[in-house]
Amino acid sequence: MKLQVALDRISLEEAINLALKLDGNVDIIEIGTSLIKDYGNKAIEKIKAVTLKSQLLVDSKTIDEGAYEFKQAFKHGADIVTVMGAASVQTLSACYEVAQQHGGTMMIDLLNLNHEQIAEIDNFSEAIYLLHHSVDTNETVQAVTEIAEFQKLHEHIEHIAIAGGIDYDTTEELALQGVVEAVVVGSKIIKSENIIETAKKFMEVLKV
Amino acid sequence: MKLQVALDRISLEEAINLALKLDGNVDIIEIGTSLIKDYGNKAIEKIKAVTLKSQLLVDSKTIDEGAYEFKQAFKHGADIVTVMGAASVQTLSACYEVAQQHGGTMMIDLLNLNHEQIAEIDNFSEAIYLLHHSVDTNETVQAVTEIAEFQKLHEHIEHIAIAGGIDYDTTEELALQGVVEAVVVGSKIIKSENIIETAKKFMEVLKV
Repeated sequence: MKLQVALDRISLEEAINLALKLDGNVDIIEIGTSLIKDYGNKAIEKIKAVTLKSQLLVDSKTIDEGAYEFKQAFKHGADIVTVMGAASVQTLSACYEVAQQHGGTMMIDLLNLNHEQIAEIDNFSEAIYLLHHSVDTNETVQAVTEIAEFQKLHEHIEHIAIAGGIDYDTTEELALQGVVEAVVVGSKIIKSENIIETAKKFMEVLKV
Repeated sequence: MKLQVALDRISLEEAINLALKLDGNVDIIEIGTSLIKDYGNKAIEKIKAVTLKSQLLVDSKTIDEGAYEFKQAFKHGADIVTVMGAASVQTLSACYEVAQQHGGTMMIDLLNLNHEQIAEIDNFSEAIYLLHHSVDTNETVQAVTEIAEFQKLHEHIEHIAIAGGIDYDTTEELALQGVVEAVVVGSKIIKSENIIETAKKFMEVLKV
């Protein structure tokens, strides 16, 4: 299981400093949507420049103009780019094609979709499907139960990740369950006192 | 009826030049999602600086972190900011609250929503509801018919706008129909030979 750490709602300077610390200590560094909307492609370039060992994910949350947005993100240094599951099938297909062309990966953010809607977009075999609870809804997540149910309902989705309220205990439980490929952690790492130590502790936990 | 002109998939320099030409000649200048994701808040600031007479719309397409994204857009100069109808009710409510606090307007982009989903979010009385056909789907739009059906199904939605494939004829028909408050036009104006003349011609048509 991989650890993805999200950089969000901070200045670009802070984000670069965090990326410097996290590079090589976590699997995936995520440039959050807020950084993209605040700073544009410059955020990708600057963070890419200090991210030499970890993979770089751009949380573009694309919902239209799929080819354009994905091309821009990969061109500026992304390894993985996100698209909303709420986008049209045409947009998802355009994003998938661009990801394949760039040797990159598409992550589909399943925010606010029900299982019926997910079933309609479950055929992107190499995409990562991200179970995601909104920052705004403040829901309590029973991650392991939710993943078990998800897997049962969507048997042929191969790559699953989860975001929202993930702590040590949940990470350990998910690692033991052995279904998800990546957990996304944000403030629990980047707001911690010693970021490198906390990240390493998460990395230990998820290698259970 | 108002004319909103979208600046999209161009350089910031081109966008600033277009805004200079369009300011005062159209009702609303839209900073497209591509400009936000390419250049960040700088795009809003730079275009705001040359937009003295027209209103400024930021097509943020917010789908999470509603309060943060809306605050940033209004702070940097937006008069109107967009949120996706596909966002959670909590996100929509957060955006609406921020818009009200800033004396600004929330536009809800109804991309990919069916009427049942629209009915669930029809209670933001001062928001503008945008009927929007995806750039990626290439659908042919019968705007007048669609608006008539929309109005019948969503009687208490007061403010309606429409985007996607809008030309002179459609604009004239919509003006005669008298339901929508704004039409959004993109390449038909910004890719035309004489931008100011084309914009003025649209402004004439919609004042039928």
